[in-house]
Amino acid sequence: MTDSISFSKRGDALIGQEMFKILDRARRLEDEGFDIYHLELGNPRLRPPKEIISTTIEALHNLNVGYTSSAGLPKLRQALAHRYTKLSGRDIKESNIVVSPANLLISQVLDLTCNGGDKVVLFTPAFPSYFAAAAHIGLQVIPIPLDSSNGFTLKEREVEAAIAVKPKVIMVNSANNPTGAVYDKKVLDLLARRCNEEGIWLVSDETYAELCYGAPFYSLATLAYPKVIVISSLSKIFSIPGFRIGYAIAHTQVVEKLVLSNSTLISCLPAFVQEGCVAGLQVIDQYVSGIRKHFDRVAGECSKIINDSGILKCSRPQAGFYIFLDISALGLDDVSFSNKLLEERHTAVTSGRSFGEEFKNSIRIAVCGKYDDVIQGINLLILFAGDLKSNCGLIERAEETHVRKT
Amino acid sequence: MTDSISFSKRGDALIGQEMFKILDRARRLEDEGFDIYHLELGNPRLRPPKEIISTTIEALHNLNVGYTSSAGLPKLRQALAHRYTKLSGRDIKESNIVVSPANLLISQVLDLTCNGGDKVVLFTPAFPSYFAAAAHIGLQVIPIPLDSSNGFTLKEREVEAAIAVKPKVIMVNSANNPTGAVYDKKVLDLLARRCNEEGIWLVSDETYAELCYGAPFYSLATLAYPKVIVISSLSKIFSIPGFRIGYAIAHTQVVEKLVLSNSTLISCLPAFVQEGCVAGLQVIDQYVSGIRKHFDRVAGECSKIINDSGILKCSRPQAGFYIFLDISALGLDDVSFSNKLLEERHTAVTSGRSFGEEFKNSIRIAVCGKYDDVIQGINLLILFAGDLKSNCGLIERAEETHVRKT
Repeated sequence: MTDSISFSKRGDALIGQEMFKILDRARRLEDEGFDIYHLELGNPRLRPPKEIISTTIEALHNLNVGYTSSAGLPKLRQALAHRYTKLSGRDIKESNIVVSPANLLISQVLDLTCNGGDKVVLFTPAFPSYFAAAAHIGLQVIPIPLDSSNGFTLKEREVEAAIAVKPKVIMVNSANNPTGAVYDKKVLDLLARRCNEEGIWLVSDETYAELCYGAPFYSLATLAYPKVIVISSLSKIFSIPGFRIGYAIAHTQVVEKLVLSNSTLISCLPAFVQEGCVAGLQVIDQYVSGIRKHFDRVAGECSKIINDSGILKCSRPQAGFYIFLDISALGLDDVSFSNKLLEERHTAVTSGRSFGEEFKNSIRIAVCGKYDDVIQGINLLILFAGDLKSNCGLIERAEETHVRKT
Repeated sequence: MTDSISFSKRGDALIGQEMFKILDRARRLEDEGFDIYHLELGNPRLRPPKEIISTTIEALHNLNVGYTSSAGLPKLRQALAHRYTKLSGRDIKESNIVVSPANLLISQVLDLTCNGGDKVVLFTPAFPSYFAAAAHIGLQVIPIPLDSSNGFTLKEREVEAAIAVKPKVIMVNSANNPTGAVYDKKVLDLLARRCNEEGIWLVSDETYAELCYGAPFYSLATLAYPKVIVISSLSKIFSIPGFRIGYAIAHTQVVEKLVLSNSTLISCLPAFVQEGCVAGLQVIDQYVSGIRKHFDRVAGECSKIINDSGILKCSRPQAGFYIFLDISALGLDDVSFSNKLLEERHTAVTSGRSFGEEFKNSIRIAVCGKYDDVIQGINLLILFAGDLKSNCGLIERAEETHVRKT
């Protein structure tokens, strides 16, 4: 009877997130007893603020385990509204905030704004969830590639190219995953103004914005345009991705729709977890200032090791904890490279095509894990790349033989 | 610029869950200082197994706050596979289980199996999330009303009526929310066999099945049909709806799709919460046997109070903690009734149309809250209904006047 199973168009269009497949493969090797160096997932392993953990535990002790509002815990919405009012200088209210996992918000926002076949612009390389969500909903993704020689930053030229596509939605992600680039405030303002003029939804994913090493955090929530939707998350800045707490800041009409979407899809999120996040927001400035310095140092060291290797090279990130690496000289595409690296050197990375199909010559590494493991993983990556480089001719011949055989 | 906001077809089709809107309204009254009797939401307030809380807390102490598999924590999938193997006598494997909130699974399963416009059969009254999910996806809901004089149980006649519709999906929910009916094993087997013969997906929502007071739990996971998908949840049986942990049991091909859907939508669920649920499953039989007796007693007492009132009447539930009440003699429709009851008697209930538009003369009450509050809420409900009954003529005249005025 198995062959009787077939799925809907949306079912067939599901691609998921490559990183989670790699994570599963890596975990399987771990179950077999191997030590794996995890550079694949942005799964930060720093110690979260103790207030988050203790408050979550207290809420569990108090059996705060019932349903709560689909919009999010009122206290958490208020705390976020307060924070963004302070950051933006604009009066952001509880009714402008909805609590939902940031990954889900990407799907929710595209689902709310786009019909099947509508165009969505991504500046690439771009976070895989945008592709996965757009594919699932049946959207037409128009990639606007950023220039690697500019460190993948966004320029006026690419803004105009995006507007010229006349898309329903443009997604922008500064600080960027996977490149670590931070876009210029002027260019972001231009993008927002042009979207507003043309009636294009602008979705600003600011998940890593608090982790800009240099200039202070600039949020597009600062701008009072009705079609700007800011998405962010507490996962990365507090090292609590397992809490699954993100949020959107948007016009009240959009928030009302997102609340209905939450109610339809997930009902609500755990109240005890949200209580913990409220406690985290009370110490965010002090905590994040330390984290920012930490990642600045680690990203600097990792970039230096890579660029000093003479085998691989990369741009030094300006934010967050990702490094996007060119592997074009090594004779393997991204997927073969990643698979072989995992099997042979027990180091997990993410293949470039997850960030746009034009990046088959790149990989992404996440340097947010345990420091010693990250450095060891990078050393293994360089060793592996070095072996490939010296064997490059041989591998190409071997592949040709294989092609002839089949 | 506000008027420039418009949404996609799916955005416009979002209706959410009425219970969460009532919950929000009730909470607002509480914020104003009123005591509210909560009979609206199936938000059980019993003490969860202490193992769940202590293990979740331990996992938080251990900072088990990173990402985990999109399919669910392997340990939890294994524990569920083990339990259903025991319950069903069939070899159910980890690869047949996916962990996801049960409410989300309803949307996920419909999304995976149906294209816009496809037909889905619901035996009504039916759980509001089915309507919300179907509306969102643009499905055609075909209600097959069950007979109230049979206590809303499913009969062969309704099975054949459902099959005759030639739907893509039939959803069945025994033990039932909102009626508390438990369907006969023979009828369930017939339904599954007929769906299998006709290639119809059968989604069996068994969220309340462990709470059958009488005959032991019968799961459709017992049947090895490839298109049967069982959905269930740990929320209701463990009094932990805020944990947001449900699961599906299905053919591996379906599970693989659901894992991709999880990866696309929510990435994964909190690992520490799943650790707690593993601990809960170790004590489930003993714990649930107590809970079952408790709800049997409470549901019996509540039904008796209602039927002894001479004002309202109901069927005695055979499972779970809901009572579906006929209010047709009281001169108000369900929504006016619920709103007035909340405002005047501070008692929150769910209006009948949430369970199918033909139930505008019914309301649902949940009797799973704090015992004294439940009894007091029911007394207030009866008082309110009594006032309506004696004023019925007056109210009808007042409404006529109002109609003339506008």
